Amino acid sequence: MLVTMGRVAEERVQAAVEGLVAGDRSQILDVVDGDKPINDLQMDVDNRCVTLLALHQPVAVDLRFVVAATRVSADLERIGDLAVNIAETALRYIEHRPIKPLIDIPRMSTVAQRMLTIALEAFLERNASLAESVLLEDDQLDDLNGQVFRELLTYMLGNTQAIEPGIDLILISRHLERIGDHATNIAEDAIFVTEGRDSRHGVGRR
Amino acid sequence: MLVTMGRVAEERVQAAVEGLVAGDRSQILDVVDGDKPINDLQMDVDNRCVTLLALHQPVAVDLRFVVAATRVSADLERIGDLAVNIAETALRYIEHRPIKPLIDIPRMSTVAQRMLTIALEAFLERNASLAESVLLEDDQLDDLNGQVFRELLTYMLGNTQAIEPGIDLILISRHLERIGDHATNIAEDAIFVTEGRDSRHGVGRR
Repeated sequence: MLVTMGRVAEERVQAAVEGLVAGDRSQILDVVDGDKPINDLQMDVDNRCVTLLALHQPVAVDLRFVVAATRVSADLERIGDLAVNIAETALRYIEHRPIKPLIDIPRMSTVAQRMLTIALEAFLERNASLAESVLLEDDQLDDLNGQVFRELLTYMLGNTQAIEPGIDLILISRHLERIGDHATNIAEDAIFVTEGRDSRHGVGRR
Repeated sequence: MLVTMGRVAEERVQAAVEGLVAGDRSQILDVVDGDKPINDLQMDVDNRCVTLLALHQPVAVDLRFVVAATRVSADLERIGDLAVNIAETALRYIEHRPIKPLIDIPRMSTVAQRMLTIALEAFLERNASLAESVLLEDDQLDDLNGQVFRELLTYMLGNTQAIEPGIDLILISRHLERIGDHATNIAEDAIFVTEGRDSRHGVGRR
């Protein structure tokens, strides 16, 4: 179920950004309206975890895995919400004349989607070193976000018509940065399950 | 421990917004640098929950409470992160000449803090009707956020000097809106624990 959630979450982020780049209103609307499957999956995962704990009383690594699975499902559901946020902002953006070709935002999306795929794989395979690689990629996403912000600000200062669409692109790049944060959470849970070590907040991080 | 986390999270949000309104750089810096206690508390809560599950194998409402407690601690920790985000943005904002007196942003902060206090009380006292009242307040916060956005846009379109600080205030009002989302998550977990009913995603919501 987590694999399915991960795949759905990634597809929705990709569809939102593709719809933005192509100015494809109907593709964007599909993302805005398509949040139900991932929400249902989250509730199924949580119910399954509670049942597992009640019936099988797992211990050690299995117990950590089940507890962490409810956190991972929450992260995946939030990524689905962020895809909706991107799509809602994209709907407003495409009403304006484009400011510039969109290069860095699709790049941010690619990085965020890859982080998500690898983090989830690390969690499910209990591979801590794979999870560590995700933590390193988050810096790249933060750098791209800063770059997008500074570039858009320049356009906005030079042309008032760029202000409204510029704000929208700044918000979209923030949403993508937050998707990277959720992928990082999943990677940290992979380390927690595998090594019983809490790498959150930099504790025990290399 | 959750009570302490809630109190710390609320104080940090309040301090960040007060620092913003007063233009008090040193108060803002205290928020930027003060994330460790709440992060440590989150890890303590999670470890305690895993230990509780392993040693006492709770069932029914107690089991749901322990599983939900790890989600609530994650929400409280994210609220602490958002206080840092507000403070970081405020640091940049106070370098500029103020655009306008800040009225709606402190109001949003008051609503978000009250939602958090009530949601946590509902969770700890297992009071579902109190939790329902939090779900209703979230709309108020979304409305204020929309109002802040439109008003700032007017200033930015009329005066290029308002563009940079305007973006900062838009980002801060988004952070406050997200604090309301986390309070909503906690309220939904209160309903889940108390009634075994999943009110997330509007399921079973009045």
